[in-house]
Amino acid sequence: MIGIQYIIYVTCFLALLIALINYFIIKRMDAGNAKMQEISKYIAEGARSFLKAEYKIMAIFIVIIAVLIFFFLDVKSTPNVNEGLFTAISFVIGAVASIISGAIGMFVATMANVRTTAASRKSIADGFGVAFRGGSVLGLSLVSFAVMGILTLYLVYGALGFDVKTTVEVLTGFALGGSMMALFGRVGGGIYTKAADVGADLVGKVEKGIPEDDPRNPAVIADNVGDNVGDIAGMGSDLFGSIAESTCAALVIGAVAFGMTGSLKAILFPVIVSAIGILASIIMLFFVRAKKDAKNVEWPIKLALIGSTVLMAIALIFVTKWALPASFSLNDVTYTANGVLYALLSGLVSGLLIGLVTEYYTSSTYNPVKKTADASKTGPATLIIQGLSVGYESAVIPVILLAATAVIAFKFAGLYGVAMSAIGMLGTLVIALTIDVYGPISDNAGGIAEMSGLEKNVRKRTDVLDAAGNTTAAIGKGFAIGSAALTALALFSAFVTAAGVKTVNLLDVKVIGGLMFGGMLPFIFSALTMKSVGKAAQGIVMEVRRQFKEIKGLMSGKGKPDYDKCIAISTKSALREMILPGVIIIFTPVVVGLLFGVEVLAGVLAGSVVAGVVLAISMANSGGVWDNAKKYIEAGNLGGKGSDCHKAAVVGDTVGDPFKDTSGPSLNILIKLMAITSLVLVPLLLVVKPLF
Amino acid sequence: MIGIQYIIYVTCFLALLIALINYFIIKRMDAGNAKMQEISKYIAEGARSFLKAEYKIMAIFIVIIAVLIFFFLDVKSTPNVNEGLFTAISFVIGAVASIISGAIGMFVATMANVRTTAASRKSIADGFGVAFRGGSVLGLSLVSFAVMGILTLYLVYGALGFDVKTTVEVLTGFALGGSMMALFGRVGGGIYTKAADVGADLVGKVEKGIPEDDPRNPAVIADNVGDNVGDIAGMGSDLFGSIAESTCAALVIGAVAFGMTGSLKAILFPVIVSAIGILASIIMLFFVRAKKDAKNVEWPIKLALIGSTVLMAIALIFVTKWALPASFSLNDVTYTANGVLYALLSGLVSGLLIGLVTEYYTSSTYNPVKKTADASKTGPATLIIQGLSVGYESAVIPVILLAATAVIAFKFAGLYGVAMSAIGMLGTLVIALTIDVYGPISDNAGGIAEMSGLEKNVRKRTDVLDAAGNTTAAIGKGFAIGSAALTALALFSAFVTAAGVKTVNLLDVKVIGGLMFGGMLPFIFSALTMKSVGKAAQGIVMEVRRQFKEIKGLMSGKGKPDYDKCIAISTKSALREMILPGVIIIFTPVVVGLLFGVEVLAGVLAGSVVAGVVLAISMANSGGVWDNAKKYIEAGNLGGKGSDCHKAAVVGDTVGDPFKDTSGPSLNILIKLMAITSLVLVPLLLVVKPLF
Repeated sequence: MIGIQYIIYVTCFLALLIALINYFIIKRMDAGNAKMQEISKYIAEGARSFLKAEYKIMAIFIVIIAVLIFFFLDVKSTPNVNEGLFTAISFVIGAVASIISGAIGMFVATMANVRTTAASRKSIADGFGVAFRGGSVLGLSLVSFAVMGILTLYLVYGALGFDVKTTVEVLTGFALGGSMMALFGRVGGGIYTKAADVGADLVGKVEKGIPEDDPRNPAVIADNVGDNVGDIAGMGSDLFGSIAESTCAALVIGAVAFGMTGSLKAILFPVIVSAIGILASIIMLFFVRAKKDAKNVEWPIKLALIGSTVLMAIALIFVTKWALPASFSLNDVTYTANGVLYALLSGLVSGLLIGLVTEYYTSSTYNPVKKTADASKTGPATLIIQGLSVGYESAVIPVILLAATAVIAFKFAGLYGVAMSAIGMLGTLVIALTIDVYGPISDNAGGIAEMSGLEKNVRKRTDVLDAAGNTTAAIGKGFAIGSAALTALALFSAFVTAAGVKTVNLLDVKVIGGLMFGGMLPFIFSALTMKSVGKAAQGIVMEVRRQFKEIKGLMSGKGKPDYDKCIAISTKSALREMILPGVIIIFTPVVVGLLFGVEVLAGVLAGSVVAGVVLAISMANSGGVWDNAKKYIEAGNLGGKGSDCHKAAVVGDTVGDPFKDTSGPSLNILIKLMAITSLVLVPLLLVVKPLF
Repeated sequence: MIGIQYIIYVTCFLALLIALINYFIIKRMDAGNAKMQEISKYIAEGARSFLKAEYKIMAIFIVIIAVLIFFFLDVKSTPNVNEGLFTAISFVIGAVASIISGAIGMFVATMANVRTTAASRKSIADGFGVAFRGGSVLGLSLVSFAVMGILTLYLVYGALGFDVKTTVEVLTGFALGGSMMALFGRVGGGIYTKAADVGADLVGKVEKGIPEDDPRNPAVIADNVGDNVGDIAGMGSDLFGSIAESTCAALVIGAVAFGMTGSLKAILFPVIVSAIGILASIIMLFFVRAKKDAKNVEWPIKLALIGSTVLMAIALIFVTKWALPASFSLNDVTYTANGVLYALLSGLVSGLLIGLVTEYYTSSTYNPVKKTADASKTGPATLIIQGLSVGYESAVIPVILLAATAVIAFKFAGLYGVAMSAIGMLGTLVIALTIDVYGPISDNAGGIAEMSGLEKNVRKRTDVLDAAGNTTAAIGKGFAIGSAALTALALFSAFVTAAGVKTVNLLDVKVIGGLMFGGMLPFIFSALTMKSVGKAAQGIVMEVRRQFKEIKGLMSGKGKPDYDKCIAISTKSALREMILPGVIIIFTPVVVGLLFGVEVLAGVLAGSVVAGVVLAISMANSGGVWDNAKKYIEAGNLGGKGSDCHKAAVVGDTVGDPFKDTSGPSLNILIKLMAITSLVLVPLLLVVKPLF
């Protein structure tokens, strides 16, 4: 029989091949008229210039962290293996793989956006096809890179003669690399996108009274670039981190469970599951089509998600039995292969349910958004209170689902089950990412249609595409948070397993102190990122005002705005503003771990997950609710555009912007990155005696 | 030597005597002209009618819970003692003591408010004297009632022949009773006060354009009643709960530590500490005076707080040595009397520090409020984002202080230390309560001056008194939250001690699930209470609109508004709206405990404390920041009253109203009441096997 590793490689190559074909299909498509191409070029160039600036800093950062890992993690726990060196190598490869994935996504998206606009001149179905195809390129390549990266490193370290425990230990560097890049993507990108958005709106819409996406606004390109930076590169790196981290977590625990004697397919089972997910997603990608000039395109998108979930579930029933031993033992308890299957399925199903709950709370079809819009009748204050409470409320079911998933997974397969439930939830990642990227492509397509002054019916079609994108963005965010939470729990499990800790006693008040400290972190982190958006937006506001004042004929459309300047300012301030939050994330585990030891650090991690998940869900959903309440009013309800209700809703939407696109999603990074950092630190923590 | 119990009784009687004298002094004071007395009568009657309505429901509630306790808690764990019966008796006495304290506070405050106005016609110092004296009546009587209630029950149960363990077990009913009344006071009262406030403002200020505290507004009396209901009865019952709960928690753990052989003074040490606090406060009450026509009166208030802290600390050094054995053993660890002293001092000091940090973040003298006011330049959205992030940020130091206090206390005196740190923090409770009540008295005094059309310089003086009240209200809220957090930790410690649990393992994912569920509760609880304010306010709005439409000559001042109707509506809807939050609080421990057992319940409690404390602090402080940002602008900054900045600040203030006066403080009740309910349930949980 062919070795399992070859089957996985073939799957990944197949996925990459399809991604490449999709890329060429899109490239050869009609890119519209000269005006459209010019605008699209601006966006593409802006995105590239942000990435370039970001990459420079990332490169320095990667080198510094790699060097630190090299020097501090070589604790000689395994004779003859320089653990620091190989963890550093894994780290660099993980970081680079994440960066390449993000770059591919941005590159394709900035090419697909204008072609979506062009195709929308024919029909909604055509436009939808381009946007969805564009999204699939990132989905397919990102997951393949993650899977291949981990598999390759595993095989290489094995070939170098490392035992399984050492191999998975140094492999965690890969996940750390991917996750640290997500810090730039999500936090830096999140600040960038909202600074540009808020800055553009404050001067353009409020002060100058020109519409959104007006080419006279010097910050308009930065705003459109922001959609790509935050929602594609940011979301992508976030989920790259999730899959890399949960896979590494499962490998670490699996190495203990299946030990030195376990078969390769048992140890590599987490990677196999992701490969199955790739296959299931590829099948669904072939089926997703929108009807010619459909009224809305939400259905094909949901079909893709539900279909891949079902396919995946069926496949897992067979593969789990084949790959895993009928029973295995972990922490002195015996579990079965079936137990692992239940863990996988519980993750898979709860991922879908969380997405649907998120949709209920944030779509204007349902009551929560309608009631929030209603609250605008008594002004912005009541609208904001209502939106905040909807956000808080929307966290209830997802948190219960996540807790139940973790408990079920643990009951049936111990800490290994917890890690596998995260892998299960991420099983549909290819489709989830495709949907995520579809959103900003359609959003940009609408912007390009507006800026290049296309006919009204084209704009109407791109609006339909965009509307579906907003709903799916909500689902995608729910999914990202849910998987981040399970990933964090998986990493937590791997951390305590690797550290050999058998109990973390909640009655030890030091642990409670750790919990409280950890529970406070998401709040300070949100405070910092919210303030950063404000500060960065201030810079854009000044620059846009300056250009309107100094560039002659800008308002009349004769002068040419300096788009690059705004992009440069957003870029610079976003990268500057992410330093402090980044430092908090990375140094908390180091300081707590070295000063107070593993148990207290476990408390901090648990506390950050407990408070972080609720806060992340509620911030993301409050933001979504305000956004859609505004759109609901703009659709002609409660007096429509320009009414007092609309003005109130605009205030809500502006409050919601950093909520849903900066602070909320950044919390994913907080909880995951702290946990993976702790996991990587384990060898060091085992040899250093805590000070207190 | 005289028994320690007599010394405590004498102290309490002395405090009650002083309270009584203060009451008579206030009563004999000038109550102003006829107009002032009429308005004051309306407020007093409104307060009474709210209390009456509340007491009816409370009575039913007390009977039901007492019956439930009687039937379900008689688990025959101690032969010959009907535990259910005596826990029910303790419960009823605790509830009644809490109710009487609240009623005294309301009664005196509604008498002192108009006399403060009258005295302010002479000088600020006179006005200050009345308001402060009025506050001291509640402070002195509430703490004395709590101490005497617990002491008396302890002695009676001892005389009935119960052993120490059984005695303290059935004594916990007292704390449960006090704490459940706080549910009505804080949650019901919180909804009442803000529904009336928001309702009055929405129609009066926004629609009709009449100023605040205008007697033509039919909801104006309900609004003024609300200040008393929320800030006096609500705050009082909250803190009555805290001291009763933390004392019971300390007694439960102390019973294990000092056991059957411990001397009475060792076992009663928590009560002794509170008695010392009463003495220290009495001394300081004699020293607090404002200078004749001082520019501000914050200093004497702070002096009282700092002075009683210092006196208390000095006294504790001697008393601890005298009352406690040099060393004792708990959970197989030996601790010293000095260790308990450190625990007490850490609580005492961190209570003061939390108050001062809260003041920094919410006073318009410092940067946080100024920067938030500045953010109004770019509209309400940026002001709200800024206020939210200041709130989040303001939780950092208090959470670290609380965690550090708990850790220090635990290190030096184990779980007993944790309970004693809460007692230590509450050592200055008499002064803290005096200050708390001082606030609404001055606020009402200002309202009465306005409504009865007194000269401008009187209104100016009451404004000075009120300004100090706002600052001290912030300190008081911080203190209430901090002590609630430590009390919850103390109850948590008592809960696990009583349940005989030695470890609650964080690596058992059921516990993590419990943590996540518990962490979600503060959010859903806040969502519910915020929505309740909105709903209740809607009722007021309709009624006020109706009166303006139907009552002839109301706007011209000739018609007479129907104040009672508004009071009745607020009362009814507040009591209706608190049902669901109340049910969640009380049934969560019952359901979780019976279904999943003690360990998972411990996780839920810890999770609710972790998320609840941060959320409570940040909500209270965000609200305070917006309130004072508005006042800062009204003082003439950034364009002053009526400017765009001011309009933005009004939006922030309205969002902040339910934050700081309803949802935030209600979280204190959530975390404490769940914990005390769990503690009371222990005998039941020990005999029932969990389902899962």
